[in-house]
Amino acid sequence: MDELFSRLDAHIAEHMDAWIAELSDLCALPSIAAQNKGMAECAEFVAAMLRRRGFEAEIMPTGGHPAVYAERGGRSDKTLIFYNHYDVQPAEPLELWTSPAFQPTVRDGALYARGVSDDKGHLVCRIAALDALLAVSDDLPCRVKFLVEGEEEIGSVHLPAFVAAHKERLAADACIWEFGGVDANEVPLQYCGMRGICYVELRVKTAALDAHSGTGGSIFPNAAWRLTWALNSLKGPDERIRIPGFYDNVVPPTPRDLELLAAAPDAAEDYLQRYELPGFLRGMTGGLELKVAEVFEPTCTICGLTSGYQGAGSKTVIPAEASAKVDFRLVPNQTPEEVLTKLRSHLDAEGFDDVQVTLLGGEAPGRVDPDDPFIRLAVEAARGVFEHDMMVLPMIGGSGPNHAFIEHLNVPIATVGVSHPGSRAHAPDENLRLDLFEKGIRHTARILAMFGAQQA
Amino acid sequence: MDELFSRLDAHIAEHMDAWIAELSDLCALPSIAAQNKGMAECAEFVAAMLRRRGFEAEIMPTGGHPAVYAERGGRSDKTLIFYNHYDVQPAEPLELWTSPAFQPTVRDGALYARGVSDDKGHLVCRIAALDALLAVSDDLPCRVKFLVEGEEEIGSVHLPAFVAAHKERLAADACIWEFGGVDANEVPLQYCGMRGICYVELRVKTAALDAHSGTGGSIFPNAAWRLTWALNSLKGPDERIRIPGFYDNVVPPTPRDLELLAAAPDAAEDYLQRYELPGFLRGMTGGLELKVAEVFEPTCTICGLTSGYQGAGSKTVIPAEASAKVDFRLVPNQTPEEVLTKLRSHLDAEGFDDVQVTLLGGEAPGRVDPDDPFIRLAVEAARGVFEHDMMVLPMIGGSGPNHAFIEHLNVPIATVGVSHPGSRAHAPDENLRLDLFEKGIRHTARILAMFGAQQA
Repeated sequence: MDELFSRLDAHIAEHMDAWIAELSDLCALPSIAAQNKGMAECAEFVAAMLRRRGFEAEIMPTGGHPAVYAERGGRSDKTLIFYNHYDVQPAEPLELWTSPAFQPTVRDGALYARGVSDDKGHLVCRIAALDALLAVSDDLPCRVKFLVEGEEEIGSVHLPAFVAAHKERLAADACIWEFGGVDANEVPLQYCGMRGICYVELRVKTAALDAHSGTGGSIFPNAAWRLTWALNSLKGPDERIRIPGFYDNVVPPTPRDLELLAAAPDAAEDYLQRYELPGFLRGMTGGLELKVAEVFEPTCTICGLTSGYQGAGSKTVIPAEASAKVDFRLVPNQTPEEVLTKLRSHLDAEGFDDVQVTLLGGEAPGRVDPDDPFIRLAVEAARGVFEHDMMVLPMIGGSGPNHAFIEHLNVPIATVGVSHPGSRAHAPDENLRLDLFEKGIRHTARILAMFGAQQA
Repeated sequence: MDELFSRLDAHIAEHMDAWIAELSDLCALPSIAAQNKGMAECAEFVAAMLRRRGFEAEIMPTGGHPAVYAERGGRSDKTLIFYNHYDVQPAEPLELWTSPAFQPTVRDGALYARGVSDDKGHLVCRIAALDALLAVSDDLPCRVKFLVEGEEEIGSVHLPAFVAAHKERLAADACIWEFGGVDANEVPLQYCGMRGICYVELRVKTAALDAHSGTGGSIFPNAAWRLTWALNSLKGPDERIRIPGFYDNVVPPTPRDLELLAAAPDAAEDYLQRYELPGFLRGMTGGLELKVAEVFEPTCTICGLTSGYQGAGSKTVIPAEASAKVDFRLVPNQTPEEVLTKLRSHLDAEGFDDVQVTLLGGEAPGRVDPDDPFIRLAVEAARGVFEHDMMVLPMIGGSGPNHAFIEHLNVPIATVGVSHPGSRAHAPDENLRLDLFEKGIRHTARILAMFGAQQA
């Protein structure tokens, strides 16, 4: 295997320029799902990229933006599926970009463009690894499938149903997820799960129009007060979520989870400095307690508040409407459906039946066994590519559609990628470090070679 | 006196066109205090109007927009002071005006322009009454003073100190306030007081920048939650304000106040329909209970809420900042200074020392004895002018600087004017009904004649 790795590494080092060029072409296409910009064109481009590698590729309807599905056989009868996405975040605020968002530019060893890290760099990393494998051995080490969706940045709304509907076609033995990379110490990270999310808007309307606070202040209902009290009923300063039954299905971390978290670096100091925080919630200061809370506790976060007059100075008005964006991060085995139902019952029971709840997005949490053989393989494959051994972490605090793959395809999922803490995903000057791009390609190629060899 | 009133009425009827023209010229000047537009020019225009009537007029500094002060002697040694203002609200949204805001236009018996009702129509009403008195009797019935300020629409910030500093010069035996008019049933109203106000902004900052709710949701402080809890500590769904000592100085309505309110029409049905309210607070349905609550109870109103993401769809963010606009309406003998101090102490005691409080405006409440001889005179003078007798009401729910006149000049204050419920003050298509303009002039002229005669 070492000899194969050397040949792969050499081929990859020689062909970086071509892949950077191909990635630049892909990033020049603005495929912004939220703004419905350039989606069809980008899906076609991705399908064409895969067809050039001998894949049968198809653009499939999902009910929203289409997904690109592609498949190609290989030496073994094992199957690996890549999950990626071709949609990107909006590029605004445009004036904060050093070079234009959709004019990919290399600067100081990194490629800058919207989507270059999230997620087009990851997609091309996978494709480049396949190129290298095909070049050094004339075939792929296993059957490879791609599901490249177009709605990840808008909550993967149609993905779970799509995966469920096509589960025979998507069937695989393992999955490589859309993201991955190194931490601030260049340690590659392996996340074995994601929290779920239930994102809702709470909205109250108490009148047809705003009223003068001099007239109605003592006698008219006030939407902003109704919202304030409804929110207060959800969580108090002790940070305990007050919705009855909210914690019923929460599974505590296992001893193995705690062991993995104990070995992980402590981000406390970094958080305190980067965000200039006065401290952490509930008097936490760092260490295992903070690490456990960060990913194994469900949350209720107010993401936004809007009501009445918000300009400079004073306006004496009783707001007729008020709304809040609230996101609940969910841990196994909570579900968004369950939380939505319990939230509605709670508000009704507390007298807030005037507070409308609209679900804006929901994803179940999803976990992978950190000791799954495929996770061990991905960790093993990273040796010799990165300076440090891969760090296995039980969960990431964020959310994504991995639960659909776990539930419907029953695959272990590894996070393999090219990101670093300064990648600025979702922000101006999003970038891909070219050294990490190369390492990601090498890592991916090794995973495929080892995975295919297991059964060959 | 009846013969004098007939001559006044006849003169007024004959000269309406000239005053409408003069009012139109005044309204063509955009004197928008909030935008600092045309203020000096308008002050000069007002001073010139008064000089043409034999007044000594002076434009006086206040620390903000200047005030016009004017004075002219009369037959008796009694003095009446008019309080008016030459500043107007901004005209936005301009596109909702049927005719341009600063091109005064007569339509269907009304004059349309920004400021035509609030407050230039009232100012010209006073001047026209003086014209009529001078025309029919060669002199004014009493000494007359005008204080025409330029900051009423931005909270009369400098007025109380100005009145205090010039109290000898402004000294008077009675005052006619800047507003007045009829209700929906054409009943002229006499308000014997105004609630005070303490308008504050609450602001919380918990971090230097917004954070991702997936990362920090369980461990980072959240400004929107801090604000929600701080607001909740101020008032609960029972509508009782929880700031310790808040109600200490509240004076309950007198039996005479209750008698006056009992005689007033019930606005409940009108409020419910106009604002499409689901009902009133605390199960109130109307009648005396609602009337008392409307003006004799202090309030704590959230006028606005702002934090985090407020656009369409979802964004998973922990807001670093949150703010609320809150207005407290005050009743005798509360003061804005007292409320501000108690609010700060309360927030500190409840653990919200991270919540900044900024005072955006404060005015003390001000009351006039509903049985003061000058109020009785104003009521008596309305007979024969309006279809109905004047209705005396103990308080208006809104706020203004009347307390400065009461405290420093010790004058009774009558509300005499030309407004009606459809005047659309502060809104597009602000208008002045010309029939009410004429009635207001007749009423004002009779008040001056009767007031001067009392001592002559």
